Amino acid sequence: ACNGLLERLDSGEVVVGDGSYLLTLEKRGYVKAGLWAPEAVVEHPNAVCQLHMEFLRAGSDVMQTFTFSASEDNMESQWEAVNTAACDLAREVADKGDALVAGGICQTSLYAHHKDEVRIKKLFQLQLETFARKNVDFLIAEYFEHAVEAVWAVEVLKESGKPVAATVCIGPEGDMHGVTPGECAVKLMKAGASVVDVNSLQAAGLKEHLMVQSLGFHMPDCGNRGFLDIPEYPFPRVATRWDIQKYTREAYSPGVRYIGGCCGFELYHIRAIAEELAPERGFLPPASEKHGSWGSGLNMHTKPWIRARPRREYWENMWPASGRPLCPSLSKPDA
Amino acid sequence: ACNGLLERLDSGEVVVGDGSYLLTLEKRGYVKAGLWAPEAVVEHPNAVCQLHMEFLRAGSDVMQTFTFSASEDNMESQWEAVNTAACDLAREVADKGDALVAGGICQTSLYAHHKDEVRIKKLFQLQLETFARKNVDFLIAEYFEHAVEAVWAVEVLKESGKPVAATVCIGPEGDMHGVTPGECAVKLMKAGASVVDVNSLQAAGLKEHLMVQSLGFHMPDCGNRGFLDIPEYPFPRVATRWDIQKYTREAYSPGVRYIGGCCGFELYHIRAIAEELAPERGFLPPASEKHGSWGSGLNMHTKPWIRARPRREYWENMWPASGRPLCPSLSKPDA
Amino acid sequence: ACNGLLERLDSGEVVVGDGSYLLTLEKRGYVKAGLWAPEAVVEHPNAVCQLHMEFLRAGSDVMQTFTFSASEDNMESQWEAVNTAACDLAREVADKGDALVAGGICQTSLYAHHKDEVRIKKLFQLQLETFARKNVDFLIAEYFEHAVEAVWAVEVLKESGKPVAATVCIGPEGDMHGVTPGECAVKLMKAGASVVDVNSLQAAGLKEHLMVQSLGFHMPDCGNRGFLDIPEYPFPRVATRWDIQKYTREAYSPGVRYIGGCCGFELYHIRAIAEELAPERGFLPPASEKHGSWGSGLNMHTKPWIRARPRREYWENMWPASGRPLCPSLSKPDA
Amino acid sequence: ACNGLLERLDSGEVVVGDGSYLLTLEKRGYVKAGLWAPEAVVEHPNAVCQLHMEFLRAGSDVMQTFTFSASEDNMESQWEAVNTAACDLAREVADKGDALVAGGICQTSLYAHHKDEVRIKKLFQLQLETFARKNVDFLIAEYFEHAVEAVWAVEVLKESGKPVAATVCIGPEGDMHGVTPGECAVKLMKAGASVVDVNSLQAAGLKEHLMVQSLGFHMPDCGNRGFLDIPEYPFPRVATRWDIQKYTREAYSPGVRYIGGCCGFELYHIRAIAEELAPERGFLPPASEKHGSWGSGLNMHTKPWIRARPRREYWENMWPASGRPLCPSLSKPDA
Repeated sequence: ACNGLLERLDSGEVVVGDGSYLLTLEKRGYVKAGLWAPEAVVEHPNAVCQLHMEFLRAGSDVMQTFTFSASEDNMESQWEAVNTAACDLAREVADKGDALVAGGICQTSLYAHHKDEVRIKKLFQLQLETFARKNVDFLIAEYFEHAVEAVWAVEVLKESGKPVAATVCIGPEGDMHGVTPGECAVKLMKAGASVVDVNSLQAAGLKEHLMVQSLGFHMPDCGNRGFLDIPEYPFPRVATRWDIQKYTREAYSPGVRYIGGCCGFELYHIRAIAEELAPERGFLPPASEKHGSWGSGLNMHTKPWIRARPRREYWENMWPASGRPLCPSLSKPDA
Repeated sequence: ACNGLLERLDSGEVVVGDGSYLLTLEKRGYVKAGLWAPEAVVEHPNAVCQLHMEFLRAGSDVMQTFTFSASEDNMESQWEAVNTAACDLAREVADKGDALVAGGICQTSLYAHHKDEVRIKKLFQLQLETFARKNVDFLIAEYFEHAVEAVWAVEVLKESGKPVAATVCIGPEGDMHGVTPGECAVKLMKAGASVVDVNSLQAAGLKEHLMVQSLGFHMPDCGNRGFLDIPEYPFPRVATRWDIQKYTREAYSPGVRYIGGCCGFELYHIRAIAEELAPERGFLPPASEKHGSWGSGLNMHTKPWIRARPRREYWENMWPASGRPLCPSLSKPDA
Repeated sequence: ACNGLLERLDSGEVVVGDGSYLLTLEKRGYVKAGLWAPEAVVEHPNAVCQLHMEFLRAGSDVMQTFTFSASEDNMESQWEAVNTAACDLAREVADKGDALVAGGICQTSLYAHHKDEVRIKKLFQLQLETFARKNVDFLIAEYFEHAVEAVWAVEVLKESGKPVAATVCIGPEGDMHGVTPGECAVKLMKAGASVVDVNSLQAAGLKEHLMVQSLGFHMPDCGNRGFLDIPEYPFPRVATRWDIQKYTREAYSPGVRYIGGCCGFELYHIRAIAEELAPERGFLPPASEKHGSWGSGLNMHTKPWIRARPRREYWENMWPASGRPLCPSLSKPDA
Repeated sequence: ACNGLLERLDSGEVVVGDGSYLLTLEKRGYVKAGLWAPEAVVEHPNAVCQLHMEFLRAGSDVMQTFTFSASEDNMESQWEAVNTAACDLAREVADKGDALVAGGICQTSLYAHHKDEVRIKKLFQLQLETFARKNVDFLIAEYFEHAVEAVWAVEVLKESGKPVAATVCIGPEGDMHGVTPGECAVKLMKAGASVVDVNSLQAAGLKEHLMVQSLGFHMPDCGNRGFLDIPEYPFPRVATRWDIQKYTREAYSPGVRYIGGCCGFELYHIRAIAEELAPERGFLPPASEKHGSWGSGLNMHTKPWIRARPRREYWENMWPASGRPLCPSLSKPDA
């Protein structure tokens, strides 16, 4: 990759993130629901490599290492092999395009039991050492339920001298423990993050480099709470590609330039980001040769009413039905 | 594979089919919606191989060659390379387990324009020659909108001396052109099929070897018509894994023993078939190590209300919400 | 009333029926749910009179006596007073317009226990004597779950020499005990009915005078079964006035000329029938002075977006929301 | 009535309000949608009297004069006859029970065009003179979209020396023009109101006599905006009697003691208030003789599964279906 993350964002370029490794590979049979760990990078490297390839083809400019939950407290003796293999897989595919490798860390299991800053920072440092050795292009701190732990993560990651992107998520307790999203963003920036999740920035008034990584699900019933409380979790209702085009436009318009996905985001969701922003970026991703904008391949279908579908107007005005008249449209969250 | 299709079915064994290559690979960026052809077997063999592997791990006893629409009239000069590569990919993966390779043919494009028996049978023969050369274990005629063409297909395929399984689908015209499903089943059996789709057999009173390959979608609004008329087609609402367990039980109880999937059937749907029938079969598929029955891995989740979910009772009594209160539950089919 | 029922229908006139006394008066506090008897005609005659007046103002050409379930086996010693008072109330209001009085009988309680033709016919004769004494204009046999009992009713009623209209309803057992609707219609006509419910005539090929009296509810989940099985019964989801306009047009177009309502049909539903058929009939009912077609009074509203609503196109294209995102759109019927 | 409003509330008694005259009489054909004026009190006094009777029988302790929009600017020359007749009708029925007559005023049309305090107060004074002459028991200021005008109304009404109850509603502009509900409540109390709508008191910390008069509709899609924006307005989805029992309990528990209804509230909704509070009040209303708690009459139904329904548990756990699978559960408000 010629240009790093900040060069790209500083020059006004859009950076398309990648999607969900964890839930996508769970649906493919390689990740264990509940445990949510990335042992697949050593057990089934081809499957992980294949998914990286799909995101690349779909238009991702970032290959995030599949190191979710890969801290030593979760993976035990496997942790080093997993972090190393994840970096290699991400790099292998990134180099087939013009993508950046992002070393990713998330919350630890330890924090829930012992809010021990020294031990937790040590866990982050161990992962960071692998990322440094493997020369990732930047670092990303993602999926923290507690602002304090996210700040610790950013403090560790910035020591690398590489750019740090940071997002938090509103935890299942429905708040960030006395910190508002705006305060959290300020804390993360002060701690050293260069790119901050736009949700963290509501009300903060800051506007440096904004990123957003949405869930790939419909979750209006979550309210401020995490999606863990939805009765269908972890197997819920997937957003359409057209939903994601709308989300992309809504993020881009007010200035977000790093747009990707979190849990449940599939590669056709990433492709939808890339297709929505094709006018601005000047090109379509490789996987659009099988899709075109708005499903253009459908104009070759044998049925005339299906040939009439591949138009922006058709998909934007379609109200997808659930096919489940005995089911409600919203659920009552648990807990 | 030690035992062939009929040996297995004759001995009372369950045969778990495989799922949807076309729509799954469309969502992964390798198949063009509208054209629906399998050029991916030559363009992206790793992606196809990976999907075969996932079905195998999920419990499939059959690897259907990814030759949907791969007749000469659709693929032109590519047709031979595609059929050959598809056989090789299916065999490569089948031999990693105890799976059978099924050479698959479907309706031609020609039929819509010229109902020319000689030319159409010639197209089937060409594919069959490849299948024979590559020594597939049995043949499957699937996705025909017209009973007449399905009968022609079976007549050609039985010449191979290998078992023939046959299914039709009710076409978007809402009927099979003057033939009822029961009549159709009798025609297909007379033509030489040994295993026939259970839908074809309603009212026929026949009961040799029954198979069923369901869509992976919720489609109560289709009525008797094909799912092409649903406004969301070809990107519709996916069934849950629990829906598929219910479907499996409902098929197994009255005697269906070949149970697989058609369009939209993902590997976790196949795994759900294998998990539902684990008591009868005596084993779980490899991919269940990441799932267990009823999502057993969730009992390791950090939140107590999620640890309470991995139970048959929980998932069977859950009414999945759409998350879309502005959308209806059923759509008005087109056309 | 100058012209009787048959003169009107023979001359091609539309006859607008009336709506539901039972459920409307239950909601007003005068009828006991479960018992469903018309003691209100003696206990609260003003309330019944008021409802007759509302139907008349809404456009009804028929005042059906509120004698549902008023046979001797249900009402005991009250029965004669109830039938007499009901006739007086209906006549009092009918004579304020140009409406006809219809003496109404329905199924007995006796039939469920003793299918004793003699005793049941005797019950009908007793009611008929009151109707004859009070000189009703015609007779109507409505709400029978069993075709046999409906035939007995018609046989009794025709003895009066007055026209007999007859409808059956498909009972909660889901059939009419071995009689198809078409056979039932033929039986009713042979037994002496001059006007027969259009549902009874499907497939009968007969087409004399057709009537239809719909429920005022949305009941797609009933299937062929009665609406008693819906979990919300007897307090269910009411049709809009626009639904009823559509129903009216759908009945009128193929030739139905007696159009009214059964359970749950309110007076604004009757007004909707009269408004939909105003072009054919040449006049609006009195109550339309407060409504106009398509809610025309709304064009005097203070808010511009509400002034934009009173148009056929607006209401026909509106999809009414339930306001209940936690509830399904269809229920699972009981029993 | 022996005891006045404040004596009742001071002694801890519950006061059950009445329901919606306007929308109920619109559905009965006597009020013009859009104009929403009470000319029915002179045109169809029996119909208004009948509705008062129904509310009384349902348990209302208050007969509000049907004088909505009956200020001189709306009714022109009719205004005095309308106000006088409305008082007479309310008194006639109130005296048949132990009910109080409340003289009701609402916002003027004038305010929207000229915020002229002198002219608007003059309009209120004119109505108040009639109320004083007819010796109503107390006064109620209800349905104001603007806090300022509500304060003017209270300032006029308190001059009568009678108790004043006051509610505002959040206007279709979504706010009260710079005044929060809590501030509004304080203003209304300072202006002289003795009983104030609980919505006005959120956050005010005051807790004298609280009242609540809910809509009879499901309106989660309104948000903070008025229900005028709902596409179905003014003909929307009615709450069930069980919904209203829940609403009653939720109002009573934190201390509200004047509980009634606003637009769309039918008499069976009022009866539901009275039935829910029967344990506290020690008696059921007259109309419960046709209903009993939880529809107890249904235990006389012929079908066993319906006899099983009249239980609190059944109705509280029922999720009413819309019967409309092609419709959404929430609408997109207009404007």
